[in-house]
Amino acid sequence: MTKRGMLIVLSGPSGVGKGTVRKALFDEPDIDFEYSTSMTTRKPRDGEKDGVDYFFVSKEQFEDNIQNGEMLEYAKYVDNYYGTPLKYVNETLESGKDVFLEIEVNGAMQVRANCPDAVFVFLTPPDLMELKHRLIGRGTDDMDVINKRIETAVSEIRMMRNYDYAVLNDEVAKAVERIKLIIRSERLKVTRVMPDYESMLGDN
Amino acid sequence: MTKRGMLIVLSGPSGVGKGTVRKALFDEPDIDFEYSTSMTTRKPRDGEKDGVDYFFVSKEQFEDNIQNGEMLEYAKYVDNYYGTPLKYVNETLESGKDVFLEIEVNGAMQVRANCPDAVFVFLTPPDLMELKHRLIGRGTDDMDVINKRIETAVSEIRMMRNYDYAVLNDEVAKAVERIKLIIRSERLKVTRVMPDYESMLGDN
Repeated sequence: MTKRGMLIVLSGPSGVGKGTVRKALFDEPDIDFEYSTSMTTRKPRDGEKDGVDYFFVSKEQFEDNIQNGEMLEYAKYVDNYYGTPLKYVNETLESGKDVFLEIEVNGAMQVRANCPDAVFVFLTPPDLMELKHRLIGRGTDDMDVINKRIETAVSEIRMMRNYDYAVLNDEVAKAVERIKLIIRSERLKVTRVMPDYESMLGDN
Repeated sequence: MTKRGMLIVLSGPSGVGKGTVRKALFDEPDIDFEYSTSMTTRKPRDGEKDGVDYFFVSKEQFEDNIQNGEMLEYAKYVDNYYGTPLKYVNETLESGKDVFLEIEVNGAMQVRANCPDAVFVFLTPPDLMELKHRLIGRGTDDMDVINKRIETAVSEIRMMRNYDYAVLNDEVAKAVERIKLIIRSERLKVTRVMPDYESMLGDN
């Protein structure tokens, strides 16, 4: 029996740079996990390729998928659906390979509910830690704007609680290194390697 | 308020090479955690230094420490006590530094009971995975010996379940690298970095 692969979920607040970090991660030479391409109903932008950037489908097709339980997670932004088809993820995990998802926070919480043993990485904005002092210190924003930004920061922190790891995106290369070491370390978890040892001594 | 340090516990079956790996780990240039020296009632061997290899104390003193709740963990082997004084570990963690313990499996389970947020690393013997096939394959041991060794291997696997990570000690340098990456990755855990973010936005 092949040991099931590990599901790695990268998420974080919008604008934090999830896509940039994910692309830099997959440009690394020693990456041995698979990227799961998302599905969307929005139109391709210039240069975007079907099956590479997204699977581009019609609204009817996407809604069929939802109805048939074929989406691991999905969300609707403005008038378009975005989501992760379940089939590819499951087949890849079953084949023993690790799968990487880069998705929005709401989607990540759906994955958490369906796949509690996945690894959840929250990408944090570089200014989150300093936000408050910097906003007040520079004295240019009125308090309404500061309060709004602090409010957003606080709600981001609340989302972080549902994740396993927090990765600061101060520099893309550093964020990539942090994610790589998390993945290598997670592969040493007893819960993940136990089947190797058990199957070896399975007859005793 | 200083964030409390992380407690890292290295253990494993006797003979696996815990001491060798620990020494090699602390010879690394970039180690920024503290080693907690054990206390024992056995006599120093040639070249062993009090306060370096062990704190060498009398049986009466050790038993006083146990009575006064001053031991994080302890065990008696043959006629001697071995254990970890609580005071140094607590003071170092409170000062924000990470502490590293290299202890026996029974002691590790006592630490697990007292400090559930510590990181537990189980060092596995290089032959555990291949043990069974190799023993049967070479055909030199009689089945009593093979069964005894398999039994030991199986009980080692049972101990592993109580740990967070399994590190194969196939080569000391590789085991050291694995432990280092576990520690770096654990420092990115949301549960550990959350206080940094919370204290920054504590007034909101």
